[in-house]
Amino acid sequence: MYSFKNDYSELAHPRILELLNKYAIEQNSGYGHDEHTKRAIEYIKRHFTKDVDVHLLIGGTSTNKIVISHALRPYEAVISVETGHINVHETGAIEATGHKILTTPGRDGKITSEEIIKVYQEHNDEHMVKPKMVYISNSTEIGTIYTKKELTEISQTCKELGLYLFLDGARIGVALTAEGNDLTLDDIANLTDAFYIGGTKNGALIGEAVIISNDALKPFFRYSIKTNGGLLAKGYLTGIQFEALFSDDLFFQLAQHANNCATTLKDGLKELGIEFLNESPTNLQFVILDNKVIEPLRKKYNFEVWEKRLDQTVIRLVTSWATNPNEVKNFLTDLQQLLNQ
Amino acid sequence: MYSFKNDYSELAHPRILELLNKYAIEQNSGYGHDEHTKRAIEYIKRHFTKDVDVHLLIGGTSTNKIVISHALRPYEAVISVETGHINVHETGAIEATGHKILTTPGRDGKITSEEIIKVYQEHNDEHMVKPKMVYISNSTEIGTIYTKKELTEISQTCKELGLYLFLDGARIGVALTAEGNDLTLDDIANLTDAFYIGGTKNGALIGEAVIISNDALKPFFRYSIKTNGGLLAKGYLTGIQFEALFSDDLFFQLAQHANNCATTLKDGLKELGIEFLNESPTNLQFVILDNKVIEPLRKKYNFEVWEKRLDQTVIRLVTSWATNPNEVKNFLTDLQQLLNQ
Amino acid sequence: MYSFKNDYSELAHPRILELLNKYAIEQNSGYGHDEHTKRAIEYIKRHFTKDVDVHLLIGGTSTNKIVISHALRPYEAVISVETGHINVHETGAIEATGHKILTTPGRDGKITSEEIIKVYQEHNDEHMVKPKMVYISNSTEIGTIYTKKELTEISQTCKELGLYLFLDGARIGVALTAEGNDLTLDDIANLTDAFYIGGTKNGALIGEAVIISNDALKPFFRYSIKTNGGLLAKGYLTGIQFEALFSDDLFFQLAQHANNCATTLKDGLKELGIEFLNESPTNLQFVILDNKVIEPLRKKYNFEVWEKRLDQTVIRLVTSWATNPNEVKNFLTDLQQLLNQ
Amino acid sequence: MYSFKNDYSELAHPRILELLNKYAIEQNSGYGHDEHTKRAIEYIKRHFTKDVDVHLLIGGTSTNKIVISHALRPYEAVISVETGHINVHETGAIEATGHKILTTPGRDGKITSEEIIKVYQEHNDEHMVKPKMVYISNSTEIGTIYTKKELTEISQTCKELGLYLFLDGARIGVALTAEGNDLTLDDIANLTDAFYIGGTKNGALIGEAVIISNDALKPFFRYSIKTNGGLLAKGYLTGIQFEALFSDDLFFQLAQHANNCATTLKDGLKELGIEFLNESPTNLQFVILDNKVIEPLRKKYNFEVWEKRLDQTVIRLVTSWATNPNEVKNFLTDLQQLLNQ
Repeated sequence: MYSFKNDYSELAHPRILELLNKYAIEQNSGYGHDEHTKRAIEYIKRHFTKDVDVHLLIGGTSTNKIVISHALRPYEAVISVETGHINVHETGAIEATGHKILTTPGRDGKITSEEIIKVYQEHNDEHMVKPKMVYISNSTEIGTIYTKKELTEISQTCKELGLYLFLDGARIGVALTAEGNDLTLDDIANLTDAFYIGGTKNGALIGEAVIISNDALKPFFRYSIKTNGGLLAKGYLTGIQFEALFSDDLFFQLAQHANNCATTLKDGLKELGIEFLNESPTNLQFVILDNKVIEPLRKKYNFEVWEKRLDQTVIRLVTSWATNPNEVKNFLTDLQQLLNQ
Repeated sequence: MYSFKNDYSELAHPRILELLNKYAIEQNSGYGHDEHTKRAIEYIKRHFTKDVDVHLLIGGTSTNKIVISHALRPYEAVISVETGHINVHETGAIEATGHKILTTPGRDGKITSEEIIKVYQEHNDEHMVKPKMVYISNSTEIGTIYTKKELTEISQTCKELGLYLFLDGARIGVALTAEGNDLTLDDIANLTDAFYIGGTKNGALIGEAVIISNDALKPFFRYSIKTNGGLLAKGYLTGIQFEALFSDDLFFQLAQHANNCATTLKDGLKELGIEFLNESPTNLQFVILDNKVIEPLRKKYNFEVWEKRLDQTVIRLVTSWATNPNEVKNFLTDLQQLLNQ
Repeated sequence: MYSFKNDYSELAHPRILELLNKYAIEQNSGYGHDEHTKRAIEYIKRHFTKDVDVHLLIGGTSTNKIVISHALRPYEAVISVETGHINVHETGAIEATGHKILTTPGRDGKITSEEIIKVYQEHNDEHMVKPKMVYISNSTEIGTIYTKKELTEISQTCKELGLYLFLDGARIGVALTAEGNDLTLDDIANLTDAFYIGGTKNGALIGEAVIISNDALKPFFRYSIKTNGGLLAKGYLTGIQFEALFSDDLFFQLAQHANNCATTLKDGLKELGIEFLNESPTNLQFVILDNKVIEPLRKKYNFEVWEKRLDQTVIRLVTSWATNPNEVKNFLTDLQQLLNQ
Repeated sequence: MYSFKNDYSELAHPRILELLNKYAIEQNSGYGHDEHTKRAIEYIKRHFTKDVDVHLLIGGTSTNKIVISHALRPYEAVISVETGHINVHETGAIEATGHKILTTPGRDGKITSEEIIKVYQEHNDEHMVKPKMVYISNSTEIGTIYTKKELTEISQTCKELGLYLFLDGARIGVALTAEGNDLTLDDIANLTDAFYIGGTKNGALIGEAVIISNDALKPFFRYSIKTNGGLLAKGYLTGIQFEALFSDDLFFQLAQHANNCATTLKDGLKELGIEFLNESPTNLQFVILDNKVIEPLRKKYNFEVWEKRLDQTVIRLVTSWATNPNEVKNFLTDLQQLLNQ
């Protein structure tokens, strides 16, 4: 039984565990005031030309909650595509901090400048929330990525309208190493007000690194972390992990591996004549299969059912830093056999 | 330089790291739906006669926030001693969920039934919040512990007044293995509505196990975890750790070690004629020293200054599962030398 | 200059002012513990066969906020049509209490059972909010009303799914006196868990009467009023007003007048060949006019522009308990002249 | 039966009712965009040399909630004396917006600069809330008033520490007309960042006028009003009332009357040898009586019991703009008789 269910099925990359073992009984200061966190932040900062603030947080929902509640006043709202993680899959975590999410359909999982402008213009008096932030994900919930042109346009729109731009980078690794990507971490820091580099879905046990480039959002951010229950006593746990991921280019290598496996998978599926829900250049592939092959496939592979149709089922296949390329091949072989039956 | 600053200075006990290494690339289901979490919960449940719900959470503040906001209606409040962690050291995390904390002085860091009744009776109409929960810690912020008699009395008072009793067990390990303790985990489950078993301060990387014994608090608790940003994608990270801590009595051994070191320290200090702020049977010792020894001591040891007086300084010395007994002896020797100068 | 802009342009009906004058210097107990409030509640209760709780509140947004935050747990959400007042025109007041609003398009401003079921079924695990309440308005934001059959079906759906049904009755007066209505106040109490009778838009200075028929929502409601800043020191101010409105059938007379004026207006417009955005049997009429007549009309009449089209403008005309029937006739005459030019 | 229970027992001053009658069927724009509100704000602004923003709100708790939640970031807290209205008598309304109230004992119901500094200094890192506002009341909950010297000192302390100073003026009328007062409305605007002029307890049906002098707090205040459910559809209801109160010096006349009655009462009680809980120059008098006279007094007068002692009872007697001076005399005569029995 092999799982293509998600990109957080395996604990952590060996290099991370190695470091954890190495520092197992070393004494460290608490709450991120340790040398590992300091070093990790230095490593991460090397990617940026701007003077950014870096904070190591625990997980995606927690990070979104902290950044958004830190940035907004009580009557302000965040704009997101309808499929945005904060809108659908966070059990109202953002609303629990008091803020409305204004949604717009998006295109290929991505928001457009036109949509932002439309939502902004519709909210023009004190009887409606005041839009103040745009939330996007890269890669998106359906595996697509923003081009530099697209992100630049959105960024300019946000600046003109006085909106913060916040990028959820839970899967930023696969976005930045995808075919067709022309963005760098530095570009993203320059084009957004805050974003995060997701560790959990790219080889870490836990951990997301928030990058704040807008000076207005920097002060007292650690207070917001603590108020939201996101300040780890053993901050060096995330420190050591990001030290491992960013002392060299391990972070990108891991993401590249996930993408490579996805490409192998995608190419193989296309050869089999399989159709896709959309064109995704990253580690999430939405595959349309005849219903009859689903149950047999399930006996050997784990995956998520995305959508049920009359005769077909859309399944989501996810590769990761830990995906065994042989299992991708096995999957293709097994599927071919099932299709031929 | 050796640190007696806190009980979360070292990453994790070797047995925990060993298991993490062992399962490094094993594939697991996300969000706590894995075999390790299942097993850890089974191990933990063996300690209880009641049918309790067990959830593995991330950290103390997050856990307090989740339990309290899950239990209370918007107009309800939680009663705590003034020194309670939720009242002082959580950056308003509880108020951020909308709830007032009603405080009372306490005695030796502990709340009394009389205090609970007094606060309850003072809040008797709709112009004031409605007290609905009592929050206590065992051990307390100043290292003291509740006896079975004390906890039973508080429990009965809470039942009579219709108040939930919630016990913060961030340091429950040292409480239950302290000299003078007559409580068990099972007693605590029977006497409270919810409590938690702290892993972070007793050998785990991260992790607190919430035990819910009141049926009214059980439904939809995972929703509250998620809404508060506390649901880990890699839930098996806490699963594996509590598996290690509770497959045998490792959890208690680690706490016993912390207490043993504290006893050695306390006894040694008493021999030196040192006075204490209070009598603590656990791993937090509040020691009153002449100002002149503080700076020299600081050159070799890390510790927290608790209170500055005219000629004296109260420092907090903390031992843990990882404390090296030799360093306790070194500390005593060094202090003796400084006192003799 | 005459205003058809809204139904809260005039202070209060003479009978209400008369009573206020009468009791101007009478001494009353505060916070609703007075004889007028008691009497008003008795008068209102006569309309119900069920044992309901009645509370007199200040205004619509405040009432929606109080009822919804009182009923829901932190992870629970309320379902509304997209055009719902809580979703669009309350500046995030509901989200400010921590709750997500789940929206669905609706039909003629009304929600359907199918929509409720769909939203409910889509939210099936702890990664998404838990739908727990359905919010509807009668009459709706576009003037339409629910029939007894429609409301019964929705009510049954809610019961089956374990959802509260809450009806915003800011304009319940015109709904219950509209042509085609077959609902009574008693029906509504029987079919919903809570609703309110709007005074502000039907002749009162301020005031909405909340009717709670579900026993689960009754306890501690006054606490929720106070926590949300909705408990008036001079509660007898709303008491006296609802005494005036419900000692006889004044409340319904006022609403009937608004509807009569609307009917006159509608009939007159139809004779002029004017088209409507929708068929509204109540005091809100959405009228499609050629752009050329808008500016001339504005010189003599106040109204709200609802939608701008290429050659046409949709305007909203509102009648009320205070509308002067002569002004309706004047409006029709003036419009006819403009159309003929 | 005559009531000295509070200062909101009577509906409204005749001049206010007169104006309401006068404008009963006049058409006005909604939500405070009317001529009466405009005029009221102009009248109020005449009292200030600074360019202040003025908003007319509904009631005390609502106003405190709006101002405090508007000013603070999620991790920020407000400092208040323990007896502060927001801390005791608002059912957690401030905490419901997410903010902790930090308390200090105070002296004579008033906060001191030393206390502010102490609380500020104790909260010095991200594990504790960040104090950002000081909340005071004038007059206080026990009837005392701030002198210009006291308020100036507090104001300077707040400026030095970067804290907002917010003054709850629910009873500002009696404060500014009390014997010993040397403050003006203009002084208060200059010394605070925001405060409010209470109408409810000084002759209005409802209504508090918020005065914002700090530019940082001005933008988007109406959004905060709406989000908190405090924006009246019929804003002209408060507009007309403040028009009546501030077109001349009616507001101050009413407060002076309340104080005059209190002085008569106080002098009379002192002649009878009665002792007071504290020295109050305003309309709240805390009177210490033998238990034996309480019940007989209650047969003719309404008042609040403040504190029960062994042989004595402290009662609170409140005079107001509406107090009948003859009833004050009757009370004194009746008490004298009871004491002589």
